[in-house]
Amino acid sequence: MEAPTEYSIADLAQAINPAEKFREVRAYTEFICSPLTPEDSTAQPVTEVSPPKWHLAHSTWFFETFLLLPFLPGYSVFSPDFAFLFNSYYETLGPRVPREMRGSITRPGLAEILQYRTYVNNAMAVLLEMAADNSLENSEEALKLCELGLQHEQQHQELLVTDIKYIFGLNPLYPSLPASHAFMPGHAAKDFEASFITMEEGLYEIGFAGPGFSFDNEWGRHRQYLHAYEIASELVTNAEYLQFMQAGAYNDASLWLAEGWDWIQKNKIQAPMYWHLSENKWSTYTLTGLKALDLTLPVMHISLYEADAYARWRGMRLPTEFEWEAANAKLAWGQLWEWTNSAYLPYPFYRKPAGAVGEYNGKFMINQMVMRGASCATPAGHSRPEYRNFFPPGTRRQYTGIRLAQTII
Amino acid sequence: MEAPTEYSIADLAQAINPAEKFREVRAYTEFICSPLTPEDSTAQPVTEVSPPKWHLAHSTWFFETFLLLPFLPGYSVFSPDFAFLFNSYYETLGPRVPREMRGSITRPGLAEILQYRTYVNNAMAVLLEMAADNSLENSEEALKLCELGLQHEQQHQELLVTDIKYIFGLNPLYPSLPASHAFMPGHAAKDFEASFITMEEGLYEIGFAGPGFSFDNEWGRHRQYLHAYEIASELVTNAEYLQFMQAGAYNDASLWLAEGWDWIQKNKIQAPMYWHLSENKWSTYTLTGLKALDLTLPVMHISLYEADAYARWRGMRLPTEFEWEAANAKLAWGQLWEWTNSAYLPYPFYRKPAGAVGEYNGKFMINQMVMRGASCATPAGHSRPEYRNFFPPGTRRQYTGIRLAQTII
Amino acid sequence: MEAPTEYSIADLAQAINPAEKFREVRAYTEFICSPLTPEDSTAQPVTEVSPPKWHLAHSTWFFETFLLLPFLPGYSVFSPDFAFLFNSYYETLGPRVPREMRGSITRPGLAEILQYRTYVNNAMAVLLEMAADNSLENSEEALKLCELGLQHEQQHQELLVTDIKYIFGLNPLYPSLPASHAFMPGHAAKDFEASFITMEEGLYEIGFAGPGFSFDNEWGRHRQYLHAYEIASELVTNAEYLQFMQAGAYNDASLWLAEGWDWIQKNKIQAPMYWHLSENKWSTYTLTGLKALDLTLPVMHISLYEADAYARWRGMRLPTEFEWEAANAKLAWGQLWEWTNSAYLPYPFYRKPAGAVGEYNGKFMINQMVMRGASCATPAGHSRPEYRNFFPPGTRRQYTGIRLAQTII
Amino acid sequence: MEAPTEYSIADLAQAINPAEKFREVRAYTEFICSPLTPEDSTAQPVTEVSPPKWHLAHSTWFFETFLLLPFLPGYSVFSPDFAFLFNSYYETLGPRVPREMRGSITRPGLAEILQYRTYVNNAMAVLLEMAADNSLENSEEALKLCELGLQHEQQHQELLVTDIKYIFGLNPLYPSLPASHAFMPGHAAKDFEASFITMEEGLYEIGFAGPGFSFDNEWGRHRQYLHAYEIASELVTNAEYLQFMQAGAYNDASLWLAEGWDWIQKNKIQAPMYWHLSENKWSTYTLTGLKALDLTLPVMHISLYEADAYARWRGMRLPTEFEWEAANAKLAWGQLWEWTNSAYLPYPFYRKPAGAVGEYNGKFMINQMVMRGASCATPAGHSRPEYRNFFPPGTRRQYTGIRLAQTII
Repeated sequence: MEAPTEYSIADLAQAINPAEKFREVRAYTEFICSPLTPEDSTAQPVTEVSPPKWHLAHSTWFFETFLLLPFLPGYSVFSPDFAFLFNSYYETLGPRVPREMRGSITRPGLAEILQYRTYVNNAMAVLLEMAADNSLENSEEALKLCELGLQHEQQHQELLVTDIKYIFGLNPLYPSLPASHAFMPGHAAKDFEASFITMEEGLYEIGFAGPGFSFDNEWGRHRQYLHAYEIASELVTNAEYLQFMQAGAYNDASLWLAEGWDWIQKNKIQAPMYWHLSENKWSTYTLTGLKALDLTLPVMHISLYEADAYARWRGMRLPTEFEWEAANAKLAWGQLWEWTNSAYLPYPFYRKPAGAVGEYNGKFMINQMVMRGASCATPAGHSRPEYRNFFPPGTRRQYTGIRLAQTII
Repeated sequence: MEAPTEYSIADLAQAINPAEKFREVRAYTEFICSPLTPEDSTAQPVTEVSPPKWHLAHSTWFFETFLLLPFLPGYSVFSPDFAFLFNSYYETLGPRVPREMRGSITRPGLAEILQYRTYVNNAMAVLLEMAADNSLENSEEALKLCELGLQHEQQHQELLVTDIKYIFGLNPLYPSLPASHAFMPGHAAKDFEASFITMEEGLYEIGFAGPGFSFDNEWGRHRQYLHAYEIASELVTNAEYLQFMQAGAYNDASLWLAEGWDWIQKNKIQAPMYWHLSENKWSTYTLTGLKALDLTLPVMHISLYEADAYARWRGMRLPTEFEWEAANAKLAWGQLWEWTNSAYLPYPFYRKPAGAVGEYNGKFMINQMVMRGASCATPAGHSRPEYRNFFPPGTRRQYTGIRLAQTII
Repeated sequence: MEAPTEYSIADLAQAINPAEKFREVRAYTEFICSPLTPEDSTAQPVTEVSPPKWHLAHSTWFFETFLLLPFLPGYSVFSPDFAFLFNSYYETLGPRVPREMRGSITRPGLAEILQYRTYVNNAMAVLLEMAADNSLENSEEALKLCELGLQHEQQHQELLVTDIKYIFGLNPLYPSLPASHAFMPGHAAKDFEASFITMEEGLYEIGFAGPGFSFDNEWGRHRQYLHAYEIASELVTNAEYLQFMQAGAYNDASLWLAEGWDWIQKNKIQAPMYWHLSENKWSTYTLTGLKALDLTLPVMHISLYEADAYARWRGMRLPTEFEWEAANAKLAWGQLWEWTNSAYLPYPFYRKPAGAVGEYNGKFMINQMVMRGASCATPAGHSRPEYRNFFPPGTRRQYTGIRLAQTII
Repeated sequence: MEAPTEYSIADLAQAINPAEKFREVRAYTEFICSPLTPEDSTAQPVTEVSPPKWHLAHSTWFFETFLLLPFLPGYSVFSPDFAFLFNSYYETLGPRVPREMRGSITRPGLAEILQYRTYVNNAMAVLLEMAADNSLENSEEALKLCELGLQHEQQHQELLVTDIKYIFGLNPLYPSLPASHAFMPGHAAKDFEASFITMEEGLYEIGFAGPGFSFDNEWGRHRQYLHAYEIASELVTNAEYLQFMQAGAYNDASLWLAEGWDWIQKNKIQAPMYWHLSENKWSTYTLTGLKALDLTLPVMHISLYEADAYARWRGMRLPTEFEWEAANAKLAWGQLWEWTNSAYLPYPFYRKPAGAVGEYNGKFMINQMVMRGASCATPAGHSRPEYRNFFPPGTRRQYTGIRLAQTII
């Protein structure tokens, strides 16, 4: 399968100057990390969280490996060891540091990694200038890979936010960042009753149709038949979720998937992540410190298990990813990633690309659930209705929320 | 959601005399276990495998708990402890022996459990006679539950076969059962090239439409739109799978789902389950002993990871469960359960039933993949095209096989 | 190092007829197992517990491997597979079934293993007869190995009792054996105050000095200097231990070794093994069923951690194994194995014997603590003051008890 | 038990000015850490290794908690959160950060912790000045605790060296520190044959007899009877250890303790820690980088299992801690900690001190083995012949070596 035919690098070049976009995206990564100390940049509390300094280096390694080495004549790597240190999971590119050891590699340090970024940025500026004045061989392929690298970096921008929050969230001092780094959703509508949208039975077109960038897992526009359904226009709020908790839901096995029930028992879970109960009052850790729970905000940092149990308690269910995509134009979305009840599986026309790029998406299509939408931690320009995010059902460190749906009978 | 409207207990009663069916199904369980010693009936080598004697008791406990106690006036339980000992996973029915400890409960022994079966069978005979001459209250509900209990027992009949094979398969003596207990598939067609069936693009009806019994996960007939595809008429053979192995597939990361690659590394897997290499020749353990590998048989006892990698190596994919159901009338099926690339999730009209019966299916709808068809270990009368079997992707002890498919572009 | 010079096979032969002793010891193993069903004989609830049927076979395998094959001309093994199935830990004798899988080997069954015992017993009778009339080559070595095999079997006799108790102890039905199989200690003295014995400072001789059998870990009689100490003449009772529990000892970290404190947290331990609290009354599981706690009995089935914490709470300590041995003639001992605060390490003259027999003791001399004495489950004739039993400090399934000591200052 | 009667604070005060010693010891800790970046100071690759910044803070917390708060009138803590963050294992002092999470606490950072050190140093200077001019209440107790705090800090100085080496040792870049931070042993004697010292049978006095500081685990001087033995005057060299490796020792079960054999299998160990084989040549990681193996140096970074197996292969054994102490005046020691074959257990007169100080040593007296001597990483002034160091037998990150011994028969 090829990228959507509508997708054209010419469009892309018109829409935005690649060199400028490169600078902007790269600078935003450094903005996210700007309040971090070298110590903050090094921690890896659990295997799934990477040290911020690793994200800074790995996103840079991507450009060095896939752009500069193959395309820029005479390019010399910043350091030959970095290929080993900052590869993530590309089996085709050889051995790498085991994921759980990333936090133990203290050198190179933050300052040297920032130098690495500058070095690669300078070389990329040369490459993009050559592409602009047509002096680069295979410049169309290079520009496509550059766009992929920037999209990849934007994915890591959101991971940086969630990983930083995880690191600070377990610190008993509850560190506080400046307001510029709050990464909080706005308020949800308060009137739950009024907010269901009816969708008609019928065939819907699903998948990316361009123009612009998209990932291979979105490609292959195709038809899905949907039975009539209703979908909430707003996300579930903290106030609503508290009712569920106060009804004893975390102790009522009948509401939960079997695996979810085992998961809350094993992990002793009784509330969303980052919630703290003190003197009978709930507060939550945010990147600007510990705050009293705001009941009007959408509930966030919940697992699929919790989202599913909440929906069941309300006599409803989560939407499928197809229902979500079909209805998206009528929904307010973008505050939180929304769990769907669709497993992350290939579309009918999906075919895994050859080579290292083919390891980007396809090989993760098992035992993960799709999230749709985007969140307050998603960088601007990195969301679209067809975007398929995916995580295992127990994931809570992402900015996740709940939207209800039900089949009309 | 209710059972399909076409499903009627009157049909059922006409089709077969309930008392007779009860006797037949129950007797077949004992036939499966007839070559087992008391020692064989007690082992539980891994948590997922239950001791045969536990299956014998648990399927009996079902009738005592859901039929005899609520419906038969004056019924007195065989032993008050058995409710605790032989409950499986019904949270609504109170505490139970942890699953991994089933093999440690040596008493009651096999003989006492066979007495338990006789005791319950006798009481069920009374109940079914009362139902037949209309002297039982709520007899329609009772007959429906009896049918559910028999279907449940048939599911355990197949688990008995797979668990017995697992127990014997790890014994270095390779125990051999009589030919009556071989549970082997017949030969596959040998001509691979000729065997693809073309299916047209369009809307298909999916789900059970009766008459007869079905599980709640099959209910709610609904429409699925399928793009045009091809599906193999025969299963992949041992000969074909050996080519995949000889091509080095178990050492080529690019063919595997990331999770599958980790799984073969961690478990040091280099061949299907029960295969043994000795002096450069493959043999397989069967219930009638260790045999030279028959190249013409369908490959079996493979995980979804292996099925998926094999399909990728052939440039194809596994069918979805919807593609399978739509095409089933044109397929030779029933030798092995066929992995589909569909996650086990609810149909659009699915609604979890209330009470303990509601724990039967719905709560397992996460992180499992659907198998379709039936196998040589499936009891007669317990298969239909709409049947949704499901297991985690690493499961190999079931009688699983591979059918290829591909989208037509 | 050689066996003590006083140890002479002639003495042994005088003291008892080897063939008669062989019959008696072997018959006693079968007596212990006589109330077991085939199912009871198969269970292995945790790795450390072996199925009773494995003990029956392994102790037989010892005679076949070390006596019959090397010494009896023309001996033919019962089954060539048994060497693999019933080896325990002798690395020099090749591969073996992993310990944790012993419970999964259902065949050979109990009846076949009893046949194996008979077969080997018959061959041993021939061998011992030949030894008696001097027609056996190397008969002195054979008789020594036979004695070792019987001592080995007696060790397994006690393990059979503890393993059977473990298997029944986790069964919610609390199976009850006949009174002949109670294996319970008699009553302890009730007057705690009067029971301390004073031992003088000085040099003491430690280690086995014969005549009779002993293990290599007891050999090499040597001197130990002991400072003056007191040692209790009686074991700690259930009544006394209850005071410790009622004083909140299980929740007071200051009384525990750090590792012991972690162990009780992790395993949620609040009482000795086999104790059950119901309606505010303690009962204990015994091999004749669940009984009200007898306060006058010595406390048993406790870990070294618990014994050590109890002693600390009393302002005392456990004796060392040398203090115990020096004082043993003045003590009432033999009801329970007594934890000492000595690590299991070699005596100064210890040297590991060559070959498989050298794997008997020496290689376990790390991270285990010495128990001295004997218990109500120890077979008659298998105890002596110099006997060094050893287990990891968290062991509770053995018949363990507490004796207090303190240095005189 | 009290401290040795010879131990007098007056001696201590004469020998050294407490304020000066305080400054020197504290400054040396900072010297060790001087080449570290903030990132280096934060890593915790395994639970047993603490981040260097944690050591810097914890050793400071000790003075704040045990000296400044109880003794210095009007002292105000640097930060109220630090008691929670930097407590190590004192259960009496309340909850604390789980050990394995120390590396995840990125704030306070290195700079703030150095401020904390300065703040506490300044307050301690005031306290020690008051003690010197007799204006401090309970000054004798305070000076004793100050001495304990410095000894404690010196223990952490050695841990800093081993933990820094561990962190750098796993970095594929093999970071190199300046020569001032090499922490390497000098050369061993090369002539193995000439180096055995004979010790006579008899009573020896064991334990600390002052003057000067010692830990409670050394107190209670007492008698040990030793049989005649020989002990090597020098440590085993890399050349000698290579012979052991080349003889196939890592693949010969008969040389190993059973637990050691399992440990090398499980951890795939084939050489001492920090050894790397490349193109058939051995090199070792040192704090000044990767170096070719120096055959004349003593072998180091080996577990007790390896030390024990090496000794067995040579037909000898490790000395006991009593043999070591009795012979120490005749030995060259101090390059490496020397594994003894003594378990870490209390001396006859040992009694655990009350309160938090009592948690210093006694509660670790189980499943650990004693090391004697000192190493090139031990700070000057922190070694004495009676010193009892202790670690679990699998420990390799300490600077450990092998000295042989044997009983004379």
